[in-house]
Amino acid sequence: MNVVVVGLGIIGGSMAKAVSEYTDCHVIGINRSDEALQKAMECGAIDEIGTLDSLKKADLIILGVYPEVAVEFIRKNAHRIPKDCIVTDTSGIKSKICPALSAIADEYGFTFIGCHPMAGKEKNGFDVSEATLFRNASCIILPCNAPQEKVDFLSDFMMKLGFGRVVYTTPEEHDRMISFTSQLPHVIACSYVFSPCCPNHKGFSAGSYRDVSRVANINGVLWSELFIENKEPLLAEIDTFIGNMTEIRNAIEKGSRQELAELLNKGKEIKEMLGE
Amino acid sequence: MNVVVVGLGIIGGSMAKAVSEYTDCHVIGINRSDEALQKAMECGAIDEIGTLDSLKKADLIILGVYPEVAVEFIRKNAHRIPKDCIVTDTSGIKSKICPALSAIADEYGFTFIGCHPMAGKEKNGFDVSEATLFRNASCIILPCNAPQEKVDFLSDFMMKLGFGRVVYTTPEEHDRMISFTSQLPHVIACSYVFSPCCPNHKGFSAGSYRDVSRVANINGVLWSELFIENKEPLLAEIDTFIGNMTEIRNAIEKGSRQELAELLNKGKEIKEMLGE
Repeated sequence: MNVVVVGLGIIGGSMAKAVSEYTDCHVIGINRSDEALQKAMECGAIDEIGTLDSLKKADLIILGVYPEVAVEFIRKNAHRIPKDCIVTDTSGIKSKICPALSAIADEYGFTFIGCHPMAGKEKNGFDVSEATLFRNASCIILPCNAPQEKVDFLSDFMMKLGFGRVVYTTPEEHDRMISFTSQLPHVIACSYVFSPCCPNHKGFSAGSYRDVSRVANINGVLWSELFIENKEPLLAEIDTFIGNMTEIRNAIEKGSRQELAELLNKGKEIKEMLGE
Repeated sequence: MNVVVVGLGIIGGSMAKAVSEYTDCHVIGINRSDEALQKAMECGAIDEIGTLDSLKKADLIILGVYPEVAVEFIRKNAHRIPKDCIVTDTSGIKSKICPALSAIADEYGFTFIGCHPMAGKEKNGFDVSEATLFRNASCIILPCNAPQEKVDFLSDFMMKLGFGRVVYTTPEEHDRMISFTSQLPHVIACSYVFSPCCPNHKGFSAGSYRDVSRVANINGVLWSELFIENKEPLLAEIDTFIGNMTEIRNAIEKGSRQELAELLNKGKEIKEMLGE
């Protein structure tokens, strides 16, 4: 089985490494620059450096590129993709991507299924990719009207790469949940480190600083695209968050210990209800 | 040397365990309830269950109680504290505590030095205390006009308990930094988990959710006291944070990728400048 990975950043690179490590598939890499391709050949992440014509022999195409590049790439190369091929992407937003990719797939006869591996690091690029990146992570699959046997095939394939579970959802539900679980924490981390106190934190900080600030080390170009493409759900989450924070803020200003303690204890209740 | 630990919660309990484990001191425990005292005797965290009269033989008193309880306890028992004894507290706020404790110390002739171990867990109580809690953590010491040799003694003593470094500061600077490094992350974590999306996050979340939400499992009674006692610096940090987040929010709403990317990349620059 031929797997073509397009884009060898942290996610595409880790996909290539995991497919090579945990399956018998022949892995073909396509990437904008040569450097990552050379490194991927050297470390065995891919078996072959591909060209656009390599798409003609693909059984599975995994897109590890920026969301809008993914749509553009598939639109331009749809005529090269075999009818029995599954195309999947790995991008962090879905409502703007999945319908476009599904439409192209329908037009040309191949299958598109959306995918979002819930794994990553605060660093980017092929150099930090790892075969074990997906170990125990959740794999979100967006069937998008693809045939059930193709969805099952992709789910089984992803479980072989080390994922701990597969979750099925729609693009809209995905984007709403991701705005909360992933995008909002990145907005929080940046807003946090912009404090004038931040450069002097050492000696005064411990785990709380470390955890909240971790993902501030952000790829601004990628995340600005993800944020803007997911504008409505993300703005709703940010506004909910600011509203919640303002409620706590005002209870602090008012100085009512009991009211504030009751408010804060809701946090404990939620975490305990979730078994966290 | 007799060390009296007052209050065997996570911090006092860990102090007792660390003193027993890493020094030759005789450790005496005083606690509101008997249960923690019995457990502390059983596991060797303390050598003796103390009474208020035990304070008369103390060389070092470590207060592991809520800030206002600390002041009240020392005020009521100042007449029992020997003149060559050092009293230190471990509470998370200092401007409201240190001057009061210093004044009592001056009046009765013993020494007060403030201390804030930058270590903790998202759980509380003696059961989660550990001798290794302070390993490599920062120990903030607030000399508060105490004699230099006493400050040096306490610093050396804390380093024996496993701390990685000692940092000296004033109560005001401490409270300003802590409002950023510790209190604001707790406000953030609670505001975050109050989102209606939170109960459904499983399958859609990874490290970002885990890290931002971790300290939402908060002791509302303790933290409402810490927040309100440190109202001014904390409100300033919350307002700065909301201002920063609003700037990012508005750039998302405006939809300018370049402007947003430049803003977000400042997060990366700050983290890289700090070598994080």
